[in-house]
Amino acid sequence: MSAPVFLPPTSYEYVTVHRVQGTTAVEATDVLAAEEPLEIRVGFGPAGQRQHRTLSITMRTPGHDFELAAGFLFTEGIISSRQELQGLVYCPDVEKEEERENVVRAELAPSALPDLPRLERHFYTSSSCGVCGKTSIEAVHAAACPVLPTTGPQVAASVIHLLPERQRQAQELFEQTGGLHAAALFSPEGELLLLREDVGRHNALDKVIGAALLQGLLPLHNTVLLVSGRASFELVQKAAVAGIPVLAAVGAPSSLAVQAAHNFGMTVCGFVRQNRFNVYSHAWRIAGSVPA
Amino acid sequence: MSAPVFLPPTSYEYVTVHRVQGTTAVEATDVLAAEEPLEIRVGFGPAGQRQHRTLSITMRTPGHDFELAAGFLFTEGIISSRQELQGLVYCPDVEKEEERENVVRAELAPSALPDLPRLERHFYTSSSCGVCGKTSIEAVHAAACPVLPTTGPQVAASVIHLLPERQRQAQELFEQTGGLHAAALFSPEGELLLLREDVGRHNALDKVIGAALLQGLLPLHNTVLLVSGRASFELVQKAAVAGIPVLAAVGAPSSLAVQAAHNFGMTVCGFVRQNRFNVYSHAWRIAGSVPA
Repeated sequence: MSAPVFLPPTSYEYVTVHRVQGTTAVEATDVLAAEEPLEIRVGFGPAGQRQHRTLSITMRTPGHDFELAAGFLFTEGIISSRQELQGLVYCPDVEKEEERENVVRAELAPSALPDLPRLERHFYTSSSCGVCGKTSIEAVHAAACPVLPTTGPQVAASVIHLLPERQRQAQELFEQTGGLHAAALFSPEGELLLLREDVGRHNALDKVIGAALLQGLLPLHNTVLLVSGRASFELVQKAAVAGIPVLAAVGAPSSLAVQAAHNFGMTVCGFVRQNRFNVYSHAWRIAGSVPA
Repeated sequence: MSAPVFLPPTSYEYVTVHRVQGTTAVEATDVLAAEEPLEIRVGFGPAGQRQHRTLSITMRTPGHDFELAAGFLFTEGIISSRQELQGLVYCPDVEKEEERENVVRAELAPSALPDLPRLERHFYTSSSCGVCGKTSIEAVHAAACPVLPTTGPQVAASVIHLLPERQRQAQELFEQTGGLHAAALFSPEGELLLLREDVGRHNALDKVIGAALLQGLLPLHNTVLLVSGRASFELVQKAAVAGIPVLAAVGAPSSLAVQAAHNFGMTVCGFVRQNRFNVYSHAWRIAGSVPA
């Protein structure tokens, strides 16, 4: 195959944040890792009888997309050598221009015999069924996502500072294994309500929301969620569906997480550690986070 | 619905490791977060016409499985209230006893009308198509996973110590955003060969392996892989398919990652930081990691 054409991607994005240290806030510029869906399609079969199929949609940082598609096809057993791969292109026939660089089509050699049941098993679309961030956000809106309340609760910046230590104290497994993500639900005053751990951050959050559902506590309008790692689009989406108005993350949010939070009316705080954090959206909910 | 029965899970596992500090090693016991697949099935439809379908398979830490299933169904839009959920059980009709607690069946109320296309879209099985760790490992073996070489390269413990700093120096986006996982391929002497970043750790690794595939460099028998976060089963599986004999992680490996590495003949090092690391499997490849 010819060398894949490299289209320069947008791998990061500048945003304006409120940077809170202790009880003072300043406006600042922050840079976020981009997160966008990538749909991988495959074409296979002999000439004249080519078939095309969507194999996977993954949330990824744009850049090196052909490598990502090639690596996925190989590590998931769809191809077993470079020779089975005839070409990689950004799909020309997508519906919307902004989706074009989010769909890669891999053309397999006519002689390649992909394992069809394996192809079938891989097909996956999450609720974020569009293939650009904008479409993903619209899809969640369309799925009757509950609107977050535009009044109260306000949460004091001093409460946000306390959350990571309170979460750590409550984590049963982390101290032992160092290998788990946690999601913890707090009252606006910082009281721990519920904590769950998992190797997958989305699972830890689903466990928290599932526990609340089974206890009849939804929607969670009067709560603050802390997640141990980074804040992805998926976490913002799940929190929004459960009605959680404030999402705080020990790590960084992605660009799409922040865009989604803006649209859903959710407050997102990132880098919550050592008496500091950034507010990326709807700062009005955090008392003490708006620059004087 | 009645309160779900809580079956005490095994959320962690004790393993024997070689703990390396500088150039000396001691045998020690370490505890790992458990990682096992969970299959979520749904039953729906009016009495007498019930249908059952597999909705999702996710790698999770056992424990709070009914909450995880309930939260997944709610946050992914399959149910919109607790009332639509009639019951949650560990599926009694699995083929193998060891899979029993890895399959949860959610029975929707006969009146619930799940969005069928949405159900279809969710069906997903990765190459780890079994629903217990053992089956997952067998499935990867069965998929003609290349056998890792049982001779060379040996890597010096002093080289492993250097890798995180070399990776950090090379990370283009991380310094700016703090929000990205990295996967980096090194020679056995610690020379950086290839580095890719992504919001998803599996994507960062697929990009590395895809780049190697497109450059005709597979199998990667003469390399060491460093990943920035934790080492999951999925990362071990992908590295094995690419022929990578040594996987080093800045964070902790999961229990299933270590079991898989044992079976595939892969060396896994975890907690690689501050001149220390643990070797979880096939320590013979790391010179200086076997207790005197």
